[in-house]
Amino acid sequence: MKKHNFSAGPSILPESVMKKASEAVIEFNGMGLSLIEISHRSKEFIAVMERAQDLALELTALKGKGYKSLFLQGGASMQFLMAAYNLLDSKAGYINTGAWSNKAIKEAKLFGEVLEVASSKDKNFNYIPKGHQIPADLDYLHITTNNTIFGTQFQKIPETNVPLIADMSSDIFSRQIDYSKFDLFYAGAQKNMGPSGTTLIIIKEDILGKVNRVIPSMMDYQVQLNSDSMFNTPPVFPIYTSMLTLEWLQENGGIASIEKHNQQKAALIYNEIDRNSAFVGFAAKEDRSFMNATFNLADGIDGAAFDALWNEAGISGIKGHRSVGGYRASIYNALPMDSAQLLVDVMQKFEKTI
Amino acid sequence: MKKHNFSAGPSILPESVMKKASEAVIEFNGMGLSLIEISHRSKEFIAVMERAQDLALELTALKGKGYKSLFLQGGASMQFLMAAYNLLDSKAGYINTGAWSNKAIKEAKLFGEVLEVASSKDKNFNYIPKGHQIPADLDYLHITTNNTIFGTQFQKIPETNVPLIADMSSDIFSRQIDYSKFDLFYAGAQKNMGPSGTTLIIIKEDILGKVNRVIPSMMDYQVQLNSDSMFNTPPVFPIYTSMLTLEWLQENGGIASIEKHNQQKAALIYNEIDRNSAFVGFAAKEDRSFMNATFNLADGIDGAAFDALWNEAGISGIKGHRSVGGYRASIYNALPMDSAQLLVDVMQKFEKTI
Repeated sequence: MKKHNFSAGPSILPESVMKKASEAVIEFNGMGLSLIEISHRSKEFIAVMERAQDLALELTALKGKGYKSLFLQGGASMQFLMAAYNLLDSKAGYINTGAWSNKAIKEAKLFGEVLEVASSKDKNFNYIPKGHQIPADLDYLHITTNNTIFGTQFQKIPETNVPLIADMSSDIFSRQIDYSKFDLFYAGAQKNMGPSGTTLIIIKEDILGKVNRVIPSMMDYQVQLNSDSMFNTPPVFPIYTSMLTLEWLQENGGIASIEKHNQQKAALIYNEIDRNSAFVGFAAKEDRSFMNATFNLADGIDGAAFDALWNEAGISGIKGHRSVGGYRASIYNALPMDSAQLLVDVMQKFEKTI
Repeated sequence: MKKHNFSAGPSILPESVMKKASEAVIEFNGMGLSLIEISHRSKEFIAVMERAQDLALELTALKGKGYKSLFLQGGASMQFLMAAYNLLDSKAGYINTGAWSNKAIKEAKLFGEVLEVASSKDKNFNYIPKGHQIPADLDYLHITTNNTIFGTQFQKIPETNVPLIADMSSDIFSRQIDYSKFDLFYAGAQKNMGPSGTTLIIIKEDILGKVNRVIPSMMDYQVQLNSDSMFNTPPVFPIYTSMLTLEWLQENGGIASIEKHNQQKAALIYNEIDRNSAFVGFAAKEDRSFMNATFNLADGIDGAAFDALWNEAGISGIKGHRSVGGYRASIYNALPMDSAQLLVDVMQKFEKTI
């Protein structure tokens, strides 16, 4: 029986994508060869890379606007480092919304002064800081648009004149925002895009070349751009599967359409969290993530029976992160409405037992 | 029709591995979930990671000898950088056997003095330098055990008292060598191990902690060791498929057995190169690689009919690298004897037409 997969990442991908990816491991494109045994310099794989890069720009409406896209290795954690390596000259600002921001800040400090412009640490990161000043002399401002652990999300992108950088690992391609507000954004594939093992970086080319330090080849965005994501052998399977997911997204109406779907799933689950006497939401309502709904048991409620119920119903991956406890329902693009409805049904069934 | 795949990398993997990898993309381990949609922190994936790490040490006979193995992202190119970041304090030595050594040298120069101990550049890298002195004051000596482009291979590992580092991307697990001679060796997966997207690093733990610089988290071997290759989300599919290949190797008699198989394939092809009047070998005979046989057309021979013949026979991936021209037959572990024999047949058929 196929599970209902609420995993925070790696996470659910469209069934049609997994089918095509599986087939390609046996034979790709009628070549008489597996996808994973062909040269990355073959015309067949170059077409995959170009299509993936192109789709990323098309879906974010950045084509022809001075942006380029890269599919590299290393995850967002490598981008914490690369962003600072390439762009931090003297001082950068970071908004700290928890775990991922902290890691990004730590790496940036190796390259210059880091100003924590705002933080929600005072309330275990259950909200998005607002109303702070953003200094005008920053090399850039860095935000994490969605925090998977705490279930918070910037519903409004900060207005600033300094270059804006974002880690969008867990909400890229999930909602209509003006991506041209960002000068650089990146996302590990393993939420809304593909299997783990590749990272999408979208970059406005004119922000490069402004720091003086020598940058190692693998760390240098310009080197990677000059070789179209093929400075060395790229992760072929993760990129191909990401391309398939982006094609699926485009064929299904793009971000405008998936955003509606995501809003419906989120509304269904958050309404139930607020209605159900057995649960309390974790994140501040106005900052709730449309990708990761975090919730705890209400005071005095024992969750054992709930755990048994969702297990029995074939639900997987809703245990909360240890920093928050309770539950986390990750409702990424590919999660069907049926799965969200099933979770709500189980929550209601549980309420009746208490 | 399944092609005979002589690709230099990404390259042929055992058919049984590709079948299992393909199945896991649909459902893994009876979980009701695809391998690529489960958490990397699930007990099922942790078991995969541990098994892969363990097999790498077992197959190289390094278990219990102070070594640990890592599966990271970034390819050997990232290791050119990481090795120097972690180990180059004042001066390191590199033996330059072409392209890959050059790239490693370039990155190392960012961290200290680099001594080119020996080079075969004078003859377009068609041999392995020998008879040179290795200074005793080096932080380490770095070699590329096999050069895929030129088809050369160290048949004897240099004797030295300084720590020995090797890029083994294209010949790891292919032959019986004393792996304990090395303090650090690494290999991109995409030749004898798996799909592109992960890199195996085997490291003697006691060589770490001897440089004073601050190392970014993702670049720091100790950080990666402390988190058992899971400092951040690992590339799940490439690691799983690598584990399958290492299992296949172990089940088939390990390195001792595959070495014999590889020697037979190499002998078959090199004997034909030497016998056949249409071709000349590129690499010096005593330094010929057992993984990549490079050869050119003899003077005055037009290769068009040969290209037509091997294409017709279902052979793929034998065009030589642009630095050498001619042909390159990559005969990695998983290449069947039948494919090697077929190539020889086609070479003989071609000779009769000239």
